[in-house]
Amino acid sequence: MSEYPSIVLEQAVNQMASLPGVGRRTALRLVLHLLRQSDAEVEAFAGAFSRLKKEVVYCRECHNISDSELCPICSSSRRDHATICVVENIQDVMSIENTGQYNGVYHVLGGIISPMDGIGPKDIEIDSLIERISKGDVQEVILALPTTMEGDTTNFYIYRRIQNAGVELRISQIARGIAVGNQLEYTDEITLGRSIVNRTEFKV
Amino acid sequence: MSEYPSIVLEQAVNQMASLPGVGRRTALRLVLHLLRQSDAEVEAFAGAFSRLKKEVVYCRECHNISDSELCPICSSSRRDHATICVVENIQDVMSIENTGQYNGVYHVLGGIISPMDGIGPKDIEIDSLIERISKGDVQEVILALPTTMEGDTTNFYIYRRIQNAGVELRISQIARGIAVGNQLEYTDEITLGRSIVNRTEFKV
Repeated sequence: MSEYPSIVLEQAVNQMASLPGVGRRTALRLVLHLLRQSDAEVEAFAGAFSRLKKEVVYCRECHNISDSELCPICSSSRRDHATICVVENIQDVMSIENTGQYNGVYHVLGGIISPMDGIGPKDIEIDSLIERISKGDVQEVILALPTTMEGDTTNFYIYRRIQNAGVELRISQIARGIAVGNQLEYTDEITLGRSIVNRTEFKV
Repeated sequence: MSEYPSIVLEQAVNQMASLPGVGRRTALRLVLHLLRQSDAEVEAFAGAFSRLKKEVVYCRECHNISDSELCPICSSSRRDHATICVVENIQDVMSIENTGQYNGVYHVLGGIISPMDGIGPKDIEIDSLIERISKGDVQEVILALPTTMEGDTTNFYIYRRIQNAGVELRISQIARGIAVGNQLEYTDEITLGRSIVNRTEFKV
């Protein structure tokens, strides 16, 4: 006999436990929570994921998740379409949007170059980025990738590709330095060293 | 504009975040993981929960989750139907089954008496337990409830109900004492005190 008293219960637990970071004990707890909800609530729960997969599309410009062919940011006339911020994934778009400090558009790579994970330049949206800037209306590309070796590799690759494309524009990257609220003594040496080299004008 | 670039994405995140212990950031990560799966996999995920709610039944004897009217344990001729182990919930049945030390049947209360949470004797499966033992074939009821104040209250309430029903049977409770592998000095005083009072014969 299976560990579970019911096959449908076991299947639901298996599915829940297939999510990253969810163990079998947690999965069982979550499934039993669902079982205590009303029929309509469980239908809404299950339906949301099947609808998501069926209905979601990716913006043809920036490759962000969208409900239509062009995402709300790319279709907005209030955004500065001459500035493209290159990010790894959708969460990064949401994080930057939450700061309220950026008014340009985005380009979601859907990953970064990582030879260890077998992800090369062809596996992410770099060709479409080059195509996008080759149209000539873009004035600045902001590289906002993780400050890791893979991020740096991808930054450099994109930089070279833009140069090879012969397009005149500014290429910048997000500032690296001491995070707000951090103590200098607990900051790693590379970050601290760079923050001195790349010091900025003191403004009041 | 919403924080999310897509309404179906937001709805899926809302549903995932409705699970206990799942925050919005984790919910987004899990939903984006699902989005990377194939259509069939997402359908299997969503389908498992809607099937669970539709198809699962509760055993008419012990109230455990089941695929049929009588659960595998209650319908097994290999189990000792004269011994009923009273537990709070389905997880407890699975935990005791995993020990391999019990061959009787169960009675799942579906909760314990907890005035603070507004759960009284009528809200859990106590009447059906009394009805079950009143048939006369039960020789022992093992109370295997949590060793908390609520568990003790429920134990006592069940004990009195069985006495009032005038049924002759043994009522026992699971042993309380020092957990295997524990140091005496880190054990709380009540447990340690009881474990001396309720000492058992040393057997080799």
